[in-house]
Amino acid sequence: MTVELRSDNAASVSPAILEAMATVNSGSALAYGGDEVTAALENRVREVFEHPTARVFPVLSGTAANALSLSALTPPWGSVVCHETAHIMTSEGGATSLLAGGAVMTGVAGEGYKMAPEALQAHLDGVRWGDPHHSQPTVLSLTSPSDYGTVYSVPEISELTGIAKTRDLRVHLDGARFANAVVATGATPADLTWRAGVDVLSLGATKNGALSAEAIVCFSEAPADELVYRTKRSGHVTSKMRYQSAQLLAYLTDDLWLRNARNANERMRELCAGLGSLGIPLLNSPDANLVFAEIPDAVADRLETSGVLFYRLGGQVRFVTSWETTPEEIDGVLGCLGRQADPR
Amino acid sequence: MTVELRSDNAASVSPAILEAMATVNSGSALAYGGDEVTAALENRVREVFEHPTARVFPVLSGTAANALSLSALTPPWGSVVCHETAHIMTSEGGATSLLAGGAVMTGVAGEGYKMAPEALQAHLDGVRWGDPHHSQPTVLSLTSPSDYGTVYSVPEISELTGIAKTRDLRVHLDGARFANAVVATGATPADLTWRAGVDVLSLGATKNGALSAEAIVCFSEAPADELVYRTKRSGHVTSKMRYQSAQLLAYLTDDLWLRNARNANERMRELCAGLGSLGIPLLNSPDANLVFAEIPDAVADRLETSGVLFYRLGGQVRFVTSWETTPEEIDGVLGCLGRQADPR
Amino acid sequence: MTVELRSDNAASVSPAILEAMATVNSGSALAYGGDEVTAALENRVREVFEHPTARVFPVLSGTAANALSLSALTPPWGSVVCHETAHIMTSEGGATSLLAGGAVMTGVAGEGYKMAPEALQAHLDGVRWGDPHHSQPTVLSLTSPSDYGTVYSVPEISELTGIAKTRDLRVHLDGARFANAVVATGATPADLTWRAGVDVLSLGATKNGALSAEAIVCFSEAPADELVYRTKRSGHVTSKMRYQSAQLLAYLTDDLWLRNARNANERMRELCAGLGSLGIPLLNSPDANLVFAEIPDAVADRLETSGVLFYRLGGQVRFVTSWETTPEEIDGVLGCLGRQADPR
Amino acid sequence: MTVELRSDNAASVSPAILEAMATVNSGSALAYGGDEVTAALENRVREVFEHPTARVFPVLSGTAANALSLSALTPPWGSVVCHETAHIMTSEGGATSLLAGGAVMTGVAGEGYKMAPEALQAHLDGVRWGDPHHSQPTVLSLTSPSDYGTVYSVPEISELTGIAKTRDLRVHLDGARFANAVVATGATPADLTWRAGVDVLSLGATKNGALSAEAIVCFSEAPADELVYRTKRSGHVTSKMRYQSAQLLAYLTDDLWLRNARNANERMRELCAGLGSLGIPLLNSPDANLVFAEIPDAVADRLETSGVLFYRLGGQVRFVTSWETTPEEIDGVLGCLGRQADPR
Repeated sequence: MTVELRSDNAASVSPAILEAMATVNSGSALAYGGDEVTAALENRVREVFEHPTARVFPVLSGTAANALSLSALTPPWGSVVCHETAHIMTSEGGATSLLAGGAVMTGVAGEGYKMAPEALQAHLDGVRWGDPHHSQPTVLSLTSPSDYGTVYSVPEISELTGIAKTRDLRVHLDGARFANAVVATGATPADLTWRAGVDVLSLGATKNGALSAEAIVCFSEAPADELVYRTKRSGHVTSKMRYQSAQLLAYLTDDLWLRNARNANERMRELCAGLGSLGIPLLNSPDANLVFAEIPDAVADRLETSGVLFYRLGGQVRFVTSWETTPEEIDGVLGCLGRQADPR
Repeated sequence: MTVELRSDNAASVSPAILEAMATVNSGSALAYGGDEVTAALENRVREVFEHPTARVFPVLSGTAANALSLSALTPPWGSVVCHETAHIMTSEGGATSLLAGGAVMTGVAGEGYKMAPEALQAHLDGVRWGDPHHSQPTVLSLTSPSDYGTVYSVPEISELTGIAKTRDLRVHLDGARFANAVVATGATPADLTWRAGVDVLSLGATKNGALSAEAIVCFSEAPADELVYRTKRSGHVTSKMRYQSAQLLAYLTDDLWLRNARNANERMRELCAGLGSLGIPLLNSPDANLVFAEIPDAVADRLETSGVLFYRLGGQVRFVTSWETTPEEIDGVLGCLGRQADPR
Repeated sequence: MTVELRSDNAASVSPAILEAMATVNSGSALAYGGDEVTAALENRVREVFEHPTARVFPVLSGTAANALSLSALTPPWGSVVCHETAHIMTSEGGATSLLAGGAVMTGVAGEGYKMAPEALQAHLDGVRWGDPHHSQPTVLSLTSPSDYGTVYSVPEISELTGIAKTRDLRVHLDGARFANAVVATGATPADLTWRAGVDVLSLGATKNGALSAEAIVCFSEAPADELVYRTKRSGHVTSKMRYQSAQLLAYLTDDLWLRNARNANERMRELCAGLGSLGIPLLNSPDANLVFAEIPDAVADRLETSGVLFYRLGGQVRFVTSWETTPEEIDGVLGCLGRQADPR
Repeated sequence: MTVELRSDNAASVSPAILEAMATVNSGSALAYGGDEVTAALENRVREVFEHPTARVFPVLSGTAANALSLSALTPPWGSVVCHETAHIMTSEGGATSLLAGGAVMTGVAGEGYKMAPEALQAHLDGVRWGDPHHSQPTVLSLTSPSDYGTVYSVPEISELTGIAKTRDLRVHLDGARFANAVVATGATPADLTWRAGVDVLSLGATKNGALSAEAIVCFSEAPADELVYRTKRSGHVTSKMRYQSAQLLAYLTDDLWLRNARNANERMRELCAGLGSLGIPLLNSPDANLVFAEIPDAVADRLETSGVLFYRLGGQVRFVTSWETTPEEIDGVLGCLGRQADPR
């Protein structure tokens, strides 16, 4: 048995997506996004997000999606306000500072990797507005689901963006696992984004069945107009863009993205239920497809020996389910843990 | 009849490459390049280039390959010396200036889009070395084949890099169509690059049958050590890198890259021979797979009507052949031109 | 005899300016521009330029004034169009590319270091507007007087800015020697700048009697609002700004700036008249205070021996007069040249 | 009575420094640092710091000194580790991120604005070294005196730099008030800097009697070689540099810098002693010339009415003494506070 629970990044590509790439692989097409597939993608995004003028920029990594989005939302002297654990601040090698011309990031606290409204308010209240000695908050960046597997509800997003808008901050949502948030909340994509005050969304697909495809979705014109240039000059306009767009189009067709995310979330629910039955303490609120749990080292060792792949940090383990995790795999993992927990 | 002669970028993907991507799509794999396919690619590159320590960074666009390569070769106060028509200076939206922290590019003249050694020498002789008022030349960037379809021979490259090395410039080769240069010159990849003084190569694959895959190949350690960080923070490390690496590995396997390039170059030779027979003047020396020709507007109009796709600029046309152009297509194009030339 | 004709940068400081600095040196004052002298300077600039809302940013070098001005006028993906000999492109070490986030500069031709309107028009006509592969011209930067000592007339400026405005370029004037241009043309500061379409002026003072003081003068709000932040984060807001402002205020008071420039220009006229009488060929049209002349090496050698300081380049020499050059010094130089020309 | 206790930045210029500027104001001199005064300054710095190859770059603001120093010490993907209250992180508008190509800053905790060795160690232990997802610590930046008026002893600096060196970090010291630290510790400039592991020092002079003059002092070659270019392209090479150098040379001559700092520190000691006698609680350890104290609002109001200038934040006040604060002024302030404290 090999069960991959290290990362949804380690999963393979959905057959429908690979097929879509093969389908566009006939005949020639204009390079750099001037193709019909990219146009169809933009239309599909507008339907899915119920937004008639949304604009879409396919890119190839989550870091590119985030840093480019932010570069189009902040002037170089701005500060991007995010949770102190945000991926953009801790795990993207300073990409935003590079692509946004030296903009900085400022971490704000909150339980479960979710920004606390009062912490955001306090931060904004403490700023010396208009004083160039101090980086000026210009963007609020939220992450949902967070790297801790927690998800913001629509009211939670609205409350935070409402505070941000009182100071004219623009709003970015890092949705590397956005589909999992849609499934977890049951809210519509529109309600989770522009109707809740989000200006630009990093819409992930790679972790949920695509090959290498993320999309920047702009709900207003200004950042989109900038991204025409910013994507190109950072090397993020692929010549054969139709292969990117085809992935994303397939992803958003026939609810593939939601079906994939639903599988990941449901397998996580089963896993968590099983862990609970076994008396294993969970460390986070696993709203989506990530759980952190406390497992004794010896147990973790044996789980690894059984072929389960996962990350360990001290006495903690992280399990991530994906679009291709099966109920049988979850049963297998729980069975393995059960046998170990059982002293007989 | 539809014949695609606009750009090799408009061609589709080689079946062997699409297949290779499907093949790695089973089971999971470590993200961000920590996979076996990427390791195999590096080994393959070392064989192909006869260089035991070459290092490889798969990226997704030629602009990324060039700008990242140059950012790892020049300090921010440097000047990248290139032909005055170089793609990096005219057609990449300032990517190098962005990623290299404000470095500038300086154009040098030469016939047929190829830098003249005496022009390079004169430029270097005119520099106020060590004077910070003046951008200091730090990198020589050559393009072969050029955007004009011309190719540098090994001695031509060596002469230019020799001049550059007298002033300690490092050398970059923009090889967006490198395979076509290998085929055109008959030289080995090693002779065309590191043995001729090239430090870093942008090795293109997308125009020659890959989906979205270019590789930065470093023949020395220092730029490679930087690129570990520079690729990440510009968003050019894909999580599912194995799909990039698989394309490049297939590309370099069983001489696919050379077979593809050979087809493009041979179709171009046939096309040029035919154009010559028809008395149509060629404007460049079509060493590889691009030709510029003078065709009366009326003739070009009718060619377009017949389904031939190509670019026009005033009285000039550009034809580009690709890995999938067929002899029948060339015959068709020539036949169409012949009928028009024939007044009967 | 020592006569300084190398550069107006080598001159000393006008007594009135040094005195003004001493005068503000009593009592304390708020740092970072929050002082009364800086406020008085802004008012004075508004009077001198007949512009009720002009805004002023004192900085400390011409490179800072230029690069900061341009950074506030162009997005990072823009191209600054300037004469191919412009100081910003050739002699500021890439400062604009750094401070403007990787923007590029594009040289346009023209006689006597002055941009030819038809060359500007041709350049703009050749741009692929809206295509992110190509840097988009966003700013026209003119230099008057040029580094060749030539000066644009008001109609010449208007013609160029008129062409630029048809494509929505903003306009910068590098006026490192602006006072010399005012004196040379007899035009008002307003006519030479905002009334002729200039948005931002680099107003030099250092070469014309100040210690280290240049001013960025903005005739529109948007760049000024950016410069509040851009000056600070590039380290160009001095804490004791009143000493900067005092220099500039004294400079613009009682026409000191024009009196200084008038001296430099008149000494140059005398020098040129004398050179002409001696049959020495002038290479440029010395509208302001710089002349390039052809002098045999032996003559130049003896001139140097006599204590005259100037720059030589091959058979050419450059003479620059300044606010403190005296008629006696010009006589001395001409006398020395005359004796040499006279074989007796 | 007017007593300036807002900031040492608000003080005037030492007569000896203004005089030195007037002295160099005779005759002409080569621009951009090629003058004799700048050469003499470098020699003087080498004597004062007992370092035969130290190199000096005069600049015009503390922000420039810090951001340029750091840009020469870190690659763009690096992280500058500093105290979480460091001026470079909180009060320079992101200058370091701009000039260092998007490098980031990371705050580490510690009492009294001084970094705790164990916090530094813990931070370095937590880094994923070599992983490009995570900004790599490359520079340790210390501030002494801190913005809280606290000063590191030589052993404290050595302990921190020792930890940093185990991970090959380079070390920067923000010495905007360095003279006050020299006086406060009684240590030599050499012992406080390079002998304790400091590679580059921002040596402030503006807050301590200069007009607008700070110096970057490099104790190793590599950053100095970069600064030749980095100072120029950020606009920080003044043409008439001799006026900058003259200030710094006078500052370091006849111990003017130490005499000025000694006055500031001694006045602070008198002030603190007096505040203590009056039972006013001090919030910091005022090692140098800054104190934070708790004064009831009503008392602060009356102090302001009496003509004492200082900053208030809630119930706290900040007093800063300078080179020109007199014992009489301190007496006056204390007298005023005493009268208020006395209910009769």
